[in-house]
Amino acid sequence: MSGTELGVVHTRIERADPNAVRDLSAFGVATIHEAMGRVGLMRPYLRPVYQGAKLCGPAVTVLLQPGDNWMLHVAAEQVQEGDVLVAGCTTESEDGFFGELLATSLRSRGCAGLVIDGGVRDVADLEKMDFPVFSRAINAKGTIKATLGSVNIPVVCANALVHPGDVIVADVDGVVVVPAASAPAVAAEAAKREANEEGKRAKFRSGTLGLDLYDMREPLARLGLRYED
Amino acid sequence: MSGTELGVVHTRIERADPNAVRDLSAFGVATIHEAMGRVGLMRPYLRPVYQGAKLCGPAVTVLLQPGDNWMLHVAAEQVQEGDVLVAGCTTESEDGFFGELLATSLRSRGCAGLVIDGGVRDVADLEKMDFPVFSRAINAKGTIKATLGSVNIPVVCANALVHPGDVIVADVDGVVVVPAASAPAVAAEAAKREANEEGKRAKFRSGTLGLDLYDMREPLARLGLRYED
Amino acid sequence: MSGTELGVVHTRIERADPNAVRDLSAFGVATIHEAMGRVGLMRPYLRPVYQGAKLCGPAVTVLLQPGDNWMLHVAAEQVQEGDVLVAGCTTESEDGFFGELLATSLRSRGCAGLVIDGGVRDVADLEKMDFPVFSRAINAKGTIKATLGSVNIPVVCANALVHPGDVIVADVDGVVVVPAASAPAVAAEAAKREANEEGKRAKFRSGTLGLDLYDMREPLARLGLRYED
Amino acid sequence: MSGTELGVVHTRIERADPNAVRDLSAFGVATIHEAMGRVGLMRPYLRPVYQGAKLCGPAVTVLLQPGDNWMLHVAAEQVQEGDVLVAGCTTESEDGFFGELLATSLRSRGCAGLVIDGGVRDVADLEKMDFPVFSRAINAKGTIKATLGSVNIPVVCANALVHPGDVIVADVDGVVVVPAASAPAVAAEAAKREANEEGKRAKFRSGTLGLDLYDMREPLARLGLRYED
Amino acid sequence: MSGTELGVVHTRIERADPNAVRDLSAFGVATIHEAMGRVGLMRPYLRPVYQGAKLCGPAVTVLLQPGDNWMLHVAAEQVQEGDVLVAGCTTESEDGFFGELLATSLRSRGCAGLVIDGGVRDVADLEKMDFPVFSRAINAKGTIKATLGSVNIPVVCANALVHPGDVIVADVDGVVVVPAASAPAVAAEAAKREANEEGKRAKFRSGTLGLDLYDMREPLARLGLRYED
Amino acid sequence: MSGTELGVVHTRIERADPNAVRDLSAFGVATIHEAMGRVGLMRPYLRPVYQGAKLCGPAVTVLLQPGDNWMLHVAAEQVQEGDVLVAGCTTESEDGFFGELLATSLRSRGCAGLVIDGGVRDVADLEKMDFPVFSRAINAKGTIKATLGSVNIPVVCANALVHPGDVIVADVDGVVVVPAASAPAVAAEAAKREANEEGKRAKFRSGTLGLDLYDMREPLARLGLRYED
Repeated sequence: MSGTELGVVHTRIERADPNAVRDLSAFGVATIHEAMGRVGLMRPYLRPVYQGAKLCGPAVTVLLQPGDNWMLHVAAEQVQEGDVLVAGCTTESEDGFFGELLATSLRSRGCAGLVIDGGVRDVADLEKMDFPVFSRAINAKGTIKATLGSVNIPVVCANALVHPGDVIVADVDGVVVVPAASAPAVAAEAAKREANEEGKRAKFRSGTLGLDLYDMREPLARLGLRYED
Repeated sequence: MSGTELGVVHTRIERADPNAVRDLSAFGVATIHEAMGRVGLMRPYLRPVYQGAKLCGPAVTVLLQPGDNWMLHVAAEQVQEGDVLVAGCTTESEDGFFGELLATSLRSRGCAGLVIDGGVRDVADLEKMDFPVFSRAINAKGTIKATLGSVNIPVVCANALVHPGDVIVADVDGVVVVPAASAPAVAAEAAKREANEEGKRAKFRSGTLGLDLYDMREPLARLGLRYED
Repeated sequence: MSGTELGVVHTRIERADPNAVRDLSAFGVATIHEAMGRVGLMRPYLRPVYQGAKLCGPAVTVLLQPGDNWMLHVAAEQVQEGDVLVAGCTTESEDGFFGELLATSLRSRGCAGLVIDGGVRDVADLEKMDFPVFSRAINAKGTIKATLGSVNIPVVCANALVHPGDVIVADVDGVVVVPAASAPAVAAEAAKREANEEGKRAKFRSGTLGLDLYDMREPLARLGLRYED
Repeated sequence: MSGTELGVVHTRIERADPNAVRDLSAFGVATIHEAMGRVGLMRPYLRPVYQGAKLCGPAVTVLLQPGDNWMLHVAAEQVQEGDVLVAGCTTESEDGFFGELLATSLRSRGCAGLVIDGGVRDVADLEKMDFPVFSRAINAKGTIKATLGSVNIPVVCANALVHPGDVIVADVDGVVVVPAASAPAVAAEAAKREANEEGKRAKFRSGTLGLDLYDMREPLARLGLRYED
Repeated sequence: MSGTELGVVHTRIERADPNAVRDLSAFGVATIHEAMGRVGLMRPYLRPVYQGAKLCGPAVTVLLQPGDNWMLHVAAEQVQEGDVLVAGCTTESEDGFFGELLATSLRSRGCAGLVIDGGVRDVADLEKMDFPVFSRAINAKGTIKATLGSVNIPVVCANALVHPGDVIVADVDGVVVVPAASAPAVAAEAAKREANEEGKRAKFRSGTLGLDLYDMREPLARLGLRYED
Repeated sequence: MSGTELGVVHTRIERADPNAVRDLSAFGVATIHEAMGRVGLMRPYLRPVYQGAKLCGPAVTVLLQPGDNWMLHVAAEQVQEGDVLVAGCTTESEDGFFGELLATSLRSRGCAGLVIDGGVRDVADLEKMDFPVFSRAINAKGTIKATLGSVNIPVVCANALVHPGDVIVADVDGVVVVPAASAPAVAAEAAKREANEEGKRAKFRSGTLGLDLYDMREPLARLGLRYED
């Protein structure tokens, strides 16, 4: 690839293994982000538009032009059962690219939800439908349909690179991108972490300190930490 | 009008037709904004201070000075049953201009709610009272009473011009201003849009794509959109 | 004190009188801030991470380094039943310094909650535990353990100075710091204000205007406010 | 006026008296804002795009759509010698609506400069041409020409209402709007203020304190200010 | 590539054709961005740290951890004459990752400048050295050296994807990324645009309006634009 | 101290040793911040209002109320030759608290400059006078004189605690606070650092890499950094 191409729709994408997607859906974003070695997180300005929104699925990507949602309609045709639509934008734009009608259309195709580096509207309806959306703004201002973007090219969304087919996991803690090829390994690592955390949790609950659980006293002392009355 | 006048209270204003207000109250902000031709929207930094807040009513306007809520008390006397108080400020100020006592006073006069380009406090009480407020900040810092502003002059609030008597509609999607004279026409247009959307919604639900519903394939192809495997 | 000292843990602090803490816990932040003469408020960018979060207790303070939560573990050992952990940072950093495991550890020690000038994660778990946290961001990005800060030194958090033992009160309106020595007097003053407000509230409810209740008409007229039809 | 109208160009506007414009051009924005009684100031996020930029002239107004500069070309035809182009936008948009070619066009018509609630580009060229621009952003991203706005209607720009023909004064301190009808009186008042300030300046220079020059000691003492060793 | 890899340094990268780099250096960022079809622009929060800073060269990329500049030292070894160092960060961090000593080191290797999605310091020295830097903040706060990132992997910087060897062009209008393979074509297209603009410029200078030069009157009329006295 | 006291002016303060102030004035903010162990830095949103502004001197502190500059006049009387006025505010307020007249007054008393967590105006005049100011905003909006703050109490300014008499050093890199008692030691440490840096600078200039100068290769390898062709 030699740069971002406008005006193209890729109709065939490699989605992550459905078993890995299912496995990843059991974990929170913070756990998955740790399991990935702390990469792949979108910027935290993306927020759920209603309380309790969460999603997990392979990405269909779209690159939007500012104040123009034409490509969302083009992308809708590429969405399959369980997909998450991920929309980047060529510039900062907080207009309402997306609302209840498009959500209805996407839902009818089995879409799992939307992540968009822009604004959305009809938020009360989205909550009633329980159609999860993570966006940078809520904005009643509608958009036009005038300029081409692209569908299913690699897009940067909220500073994270997303390839079509990558797994997107989003909850109240944020949005993380798991590359399709890494999805099974990340799910396995996340499971290992959770198992490991369960043991720690029990110890914390019983009053053990992190200082002791993680053997921190010695390295802290070595760096010169001192206690005073 | 030759500019903003300070130190004046207009006691007689032309409120929008109550029937139009009632009609408008049936629609969401996004629909009304579309029905107006996409003008009149306040900037999206105004947010409801509690979940589910919404309001619709004619505006009593007030121009505040920063960190000074004196004019809100002056404005309270001008409020009639169903009015929405709309407060602009001569500069950016996020202090808590408004709280539960003023809400109690306004409620006793039948006030429908507040839209303020500033901060408010006592938010838990406002929610308990279900007194809807849309503000740019939540802030416990109180204000003083030292400087004159004005009541029922045209004010700019969150970048939108509001004349006294204009209809203010606010919900989770934002805040829109409907000029009093346009209220009936906007309500009619909003009803038409909703009826029209119902048909579209049914089609989207049954799987029709926006590409087909809106006949987008041909113009997209003409602009050069191409599909690749 | 001749400046901020790094690498030290003060193990003995003077906590505010527990009776004063209990008394303060009956009031909202806005009331307490008024009772203090309108000082001691943290900047309003600190927000509760879930709806209904509130806390009141003496501060154990910690100074963090950016993206480094080591000192939170050190601080945990200094926390006693009812304490609030207050974390400042040497620079702006919105990473997720704190999550469910640390909350479990703090809860096991009776900690009343956390106020942090940084980010936190595992917010759904924090809500389930009802462990109140006030932060500047929600962020899945974890932190490292590499650099010394300090515990129980005076820290600046969200532009407010906090001494260990000061009472921290936080609710949806914000976060306020009551110096330990002033806690009883502030609680008494807050009670007086609330009693006073009850009388005003009744008058507002019955339709009395602030203009009359506070005798504002004369000073407003003196400044030149005029009424026009 | 019953709201903002899209798709219209008013070709005849009442410009402020040229003598008043000339008189106003002698004063800084802070002085003029004071002379107006502290109203009419745009929000301070508008900044000069190069050092030393300043302008003064009657407004030709334009309402833009986000990411669309078509109406700037329409507005150019309405500009006369000495006019300032003032551009509001129906939503927040920081794309580069304006650059060197449009500046060349406007300059050829005698345009005094641009104030825009959006982004601009070719800033190095604008500086070389000494074509003063005040904007909310600098951004290389260009715009499209797809949607109608309006020219010479009242527009809100950076939260200030501007009528065509009003005088716009801008310098490093910000941008202020002087209603056309008030321009002579404001210029006179500004001159009076400057004369008055010259006397104060001399006293300050010789060491007189504001405390004494403005007789502040007594009111401060009355409010309870006390001095301690 | 299946995601971002940490802890790796790629020592061999394909730099863009030096002739194309030289050709591109003749154009401004706005022109190049147009020549690329309006993609590849970094977010406009990146700003030059001193007036007149500009740069053009192939990218050596580095992925930093927040508040940690260790990888900049690792990257320095990979820099060749004329290269631009481009630094992304795994999270938002505005500390001072870079100052005069590192600039001296990079300069000794012929480095053309730095683009960093973070903060820098010693700005007065950078200006004296005329070492161009584009950053999101100026901040005296130094960083630590504790955690691995990577060098010469694809990085996202200010929301733009950069591959090692891509050409980075930056000036007062912003920062644009030209994929290495496209550099010659983009340079050619930029030259064509500039030639084309020269003709337009002459016409604008002589008073021709964009309305006529671009034949806009007819499409505007078709959309319904109307002129009123 | 049991909290922030309003309505008091302390007329006697302990200024830092003048020799230490003079010594500190030879160093940049970044160097001094390092010499202090990386504490005491104000938040980087404080910026010089003109290019080249810098200052160094003992602090006279003032706590302002929002939109109210009365206490600056009170503070002026407490300023001695070489002092820096440092102004915090009880809340966020970006109005123009300070302009050319107050600068003239302060200059006549030998004041070295102003650091203010608020806005200022008359910036062109301040530059002409070369009266250095570091502020969070430039804003033509003036302030009132209605409410008491305090002078020469400890204030928090841009998240840093300042005691009267502390040394304030500010330049393009930011603003740092050196506690009075530490000033001589910090100046000595800064000198040591600069001497040390001179040696490093020479090595960097001759092409030595930080990797070798700081012996980083081994710890990087130990953490697992690997090089690939």
